[in-house]
Amino acid sequence: MGFRASRYLPLLRWLRDYDRYRLASDANAALLVTIIVIPQSLAFALLAGLPAQAGLYASILPCLAYAVFGTSNTLAVGPVALISLMSAAAVGDVASAGTAGYAVASGVLALLCGIILLAMGLLRLGFLSNFISHPVISGFITASGLLIAASQIKHLLGIEANGESLIELGQSLAMSLPQTHQLTLAIGLPALVFLYLVRRHLAPVLSHFHVSNRLTGILIRMGPVAAVAMGTALVSYLALDERGVAVVGEVPAGLPALALPVSSWALIRELMVPALLISIVTFVESVSLAQTLAARRRERVDPDQELLGLGTANLASAFSGGFAVAGGFSRSIINFDAGARTPAAGAFTALGIGLVTVYFTPWFEHLPVSVLAASIIISVLSLVDLAAIRETWQYSRHDGSALVGTIAITLGFGVIPGIVTGISLSLILYLWRTSRPHSALVGRIRNSESFRNIVRHTVETDPRVMILRVDESLYFANARYLEDRIYTLIMEQPELTDFVLMCPAVNYIDASALESLEAINGRLHDAGIRLHLSDVKGPVMDKLNRSHFLQGLTGEVFMSTYDAWCKLHGNGDNAEPEPAGPKDAEIE
Amino acid sequence: MGFRASRYLPLLRWLRDYDRYRLASDANAALLVTIIVIPQSLAFALLAGLPAQAGLYASILPCLAYAVFGTSNTLAVGPVALISLMSAAAVGDVASAGTAGYAVASGVLALLCGIILLAMGLLRLGFLSNFISHPVISGFITASGLLIAASQIKHLLGIEANGESLIELGQSLAMSLPQTHQLTLAIGLPALVFLYLVRRHLAPVLSHFHVSNRLTGILIRMGPVAAVAMGTALVSYLALDERGVAVVGEVPAGLPALALPVSSWALIRELMVPALLISIVTFVESVSLAQTLAARRRERVDPDQELLGLGTANLASAFSGGFAVAGGFSRSIINFDAGARTPAAGAFTALGIGLVTVYFTPWFEHLPVSVLAASIIISVLSLVDLAAIRETWQYSRHDGSALVGTIAITLGFGVIPGIVTGISLSLILYLWRTSRPHSALVGRIRNSESFRNIVRHTVETDPRVMILRVDESLYFANARYLEDRIYTLIMEQPELTDFVLMCPAVNYIDASALESLEAINGRLHDAGIRLHLSDVKGPVMDKLNRSHFLQGLTGEVFMSTYDAWCKLHGNGDNAEPEPAGPKDAEIE
Repeated sequence: MGFRASRYLPLLRWLRDYDRYRLASDANAALLVTIIVIPQSLAFALLAGLPAQAGLYASILPCLAYAVFGTSNTLAVGPVALISLMSAAAVGDVASAGTAGYAVASGVLALLCGIILLAMGLLRLGFLSNFISHPVISGFITASGLLIAASQIKHLLGIEANGESLIELGQSLAMSLPQTHQLTLAIGLPALVFLYLVRRHLAPVLSHFHVSNRLTGILIRMGPVAAVAMGTALVSYLALDERGVAVVGEVPAGLPALALPVSSWALIRELMVPALLISIVTFVESVSLAQTLAARRRERVDPDQELLGLGTANLASAFSGGFAVAGGFSRSIINFDAGARTPAAGAFTALGIGLVTVYFTPWFEHLPVSVLAASIIISVLSLVDLAAIRETWQYSRHDGSALVGTIAITLGFGVIPGIVTGISLSLILYLWRTSRPHSALVGRIRNSESFRNIVRHTVETDPRVMILRVDESLYFANARYLEDRIYTLIMEQPELTDFVLMCPAVNYIDASALESLEAINGRLHDAGIRLHLSDVKGPVMDKLNRSHFLQGLTGEVFMSTYDAWCKLHGNGDNAEPEPAGPKDAEIE
Repeated sequence: MGFRASRYLPLLRWLRDYDRYRLASDANAALLVTIIVIPQSLAFALLAGLPAQAGLYASILPCLAYAVFGTSNTLAVGPVALISLMSAAAVGDVASAGTAGYAVASGVLALLCGIILLAMGLLRLGFLSNFISHPVISGFITASGLLIAASQIKHLLGIEANGESLIELGQSLAMSLPQTHQLTLAIGLPALVFLYLVRRHLAPVLSHFHVSNRLTGILIRMGPVAAVAMGTALVSYLALDERGVAVVGEVPAGLPALALPVSSWALIRELMVPALLISIVTFVESVSLAQTLAARRRERVDPDQELLGLGTANLASAFSGGFAVAGGFSRSIINFDAGARTPAAGAFTALGIGLVTVYFTPWFEHLPVSVLAASIIISVLSLVDLAAIRETWQYSRHDGSALVGTIAITLGFGVIPGIVTGISLSLILYLWRTSRPHSALVGRIRNSESFRNIVRHTVETDPRVMILRVDESLYFANARYLEDRIYTLIMEQPELTDFVLMCPAVNYIDASALESLEAINGRLHDAGIRLHLSDVKGPVMDKLNRSHFLQGLTGEVFMSTYDAWCKLHGNGDNAEPEPAGPKDAEIE
């Protein structure tokens, strides 16, 4: 019982060794994270189409829940740009922005994500994330970054514009462009430039003054805090909000009320597919981030337990007026750099943000939305990785197509169609590739037991013995392809008496392929050719032994292709002794 | 131009050599087929929910169209039980049986199937059928046979019952059972018994009297004709239709009017997915039947051209008041057994059925529906192959699950969900299998260059050199699995200095797997272990050369595992000379 509890509550493990040193490290990291994530949390709430306080709520209890159930010492959970955008896309289809129904639907979405993640964790389905390829994830993140940046332009310009794809957004922006609010732009644009300079050029300047890398990292990430503080001061002092500059406005003080977001079955049914996709993206992104951070310190994270941590975090968010959350890149990096030692750092962050929510919300009243938008734009542009496109394309056309396809569909049709297309495309390309397997006629490399492609290597061959190496497992999608290939080959070589199928790359033969092999065996028999197999792997042989195939096989199953060669070419029963083979061997 | 025409019009090829001998064979076969398919065509029209004449119409122009565009000399095209059932399931969702809209929707479905098959043929997409595995097809046909038989019980009993799944049908039948019409049953049941006896026991009796096999085959297939004739005579003589026995009723005489089935976009959209599925099943079934028959006579069929033949046949059916058609098993077998030599036999069959439609429809007025139902039941039960379930399960649990899953979903939810689930299931099981590849630690078989699984064979090993053979291509779905496997292995062997990944079964490495290999390389390096590759195939090596991986690789890429062994174990730079290997070799 005790063992089971600690399996599902990693808390019990690290709490035993908790000491003053760890407490100091964790508290220090939490303080920094609290300060840095506040503007981010407010901004991502707006990105998700929700009031600013939802971002704070989504950073309190979820942080605490993850601290109890998560396994990463440094992953910080809360609102994340990509997930906020996906949430907005999903909820936008079922409710109008700004209504109470919209906030409820956002909560229901987080609830569903929580349930799905928990279920995946309890059923140990973490492996499902393996079915999303790196190029698809990379393309999806790049395209989402561009979409998020585009979606914030309206706040910089102080206009209205909406759309789920780049095209819709662009059209909408172009239409409203004449209404640009110049005072808003006059605040947002300098903020954008300031943040860009901090991000790109602060590091070399600081290194010139011998500031440590760690401090530099923290200072760079303080950029948005400084921009927000300056912007708020400016608006407040000049009363710019009375002159039309959009501000966050009054944020209710106090902790969120705990309540289950009320919902109908119809709503749940509509949000189910987006929730599944958001859960998968949440999991893939959070776990790979957690693993990257853990690897740097030789720690380990347990993907299935991470699902429980992320699941409870989303449930906590749903119950406390928040929305879908995940492990955030910049907040986790800060946590890591500032020296967080255990998940307690997350709990302290929750405490910090809770205090802010209770005491400091009046500070956000005059915070200009355009500065938040500028901070989002600068932060998400770091997600855009255009070099990956070229590199991936160069390495593999299939992977490159999956990447480019994901980007195109995400930009053209939005995040939900984008991730669905990406996953489908990579699976289809994989199936397509295995359905047309590479195969090669091989010959013997002299003085060796190796058999290699006759096109690539200088090898011995025998006109009566054809050896085909097929470079794929045999299954329904490629069985007929192989049949056609073999029938074409044997027609080209009339002296043929023996055909050897070399199977070092055949990892299994399914029932459809077995039928094809039987058909090949029959057809070769009719043509006076015996069919042999060589290099058949143990597990494949076990299966063949359970079928009737071997009884009907006209030839033999050889342990190695070399054995087949010796029997059929060198001194085989059916072959007239051919001097070429041995003689060549003597010459060399 | 002439070449292109004969490519798409196989007619031009066989018509050149057409002679009196072929004419006689074809005409003889067509006469038999005409007689035998008439009851079948009427019955399958009822199965598709259409008036009896639709079955005749669907046997005239489609036959002719296939004769022009098809490549099989013996495949006979027309209404088919399985396709009729699928048509009824699809059309039943958008129109009520018996209405004019129902007939139109059936025509539209045939039109869509025709367009899809033609498009697949022109785009040479015949390979798509390879993605349906044999177990899925086999399970689907077995379950459909059972469903069709169950759907005919109501006609035997003279009651009303409907349902797309076995459960719905069973409930519906049970509810109506008390209304059984005894006179109907009194005709249908003897017909059923008669047909069963003919099917099962006529052959041994006839062989006792030394009747030839071919004639026996034809006589067995004449059973339904005899039953229909006797049933019609009985009903007509005793005027049983006036006493409530359901009959085919008045069938309008004359050829069908040619017209495009009028439709709306909404209807087309709703029928699109079923049309796609029906097209795939039509293609898979017809082509495998055509290939089986062609192989017996050493003829060839061209799958892509078959798509054009089947596509035009469906278009012709749509334009002439018919419904979806395919190559039919029993009509093709008769055609084959009766000696059809060229597609002209199909044209003659069309002529024969045309004549029947013009002159003999009054004969069908008193044909009892229960006898048609009995003939359907007996004919489809031959589709049920229960032995395949056991055999497939024995050979492979995966294939067995796909087969059983397809049967269960088809019986439980109907044909459309059944085939969709079957195809998805077999693809998912394939992906699942490749995502957890088999791998084996290998050692050297003494006195050879072969390396085999240390568990299955007696082999030489070296505690400082670990050789892992991975039996699958490396791609996104199994990349992390491999990482975990390697990390676990190296922790078990602390003396390790060199790790060799043996890749004879690795047919490609995608971008995701490449990243994993880079991660493995880095992690092994940190642990003081070098990573080597061996037996890397040419195409894989070409790709690796295009990436940065080889520059960072801590070890080497060996041509063969034996080379790696010689370098790392036998007389490697890093290895102290170990006497075990050579000494053993001397002893043997």
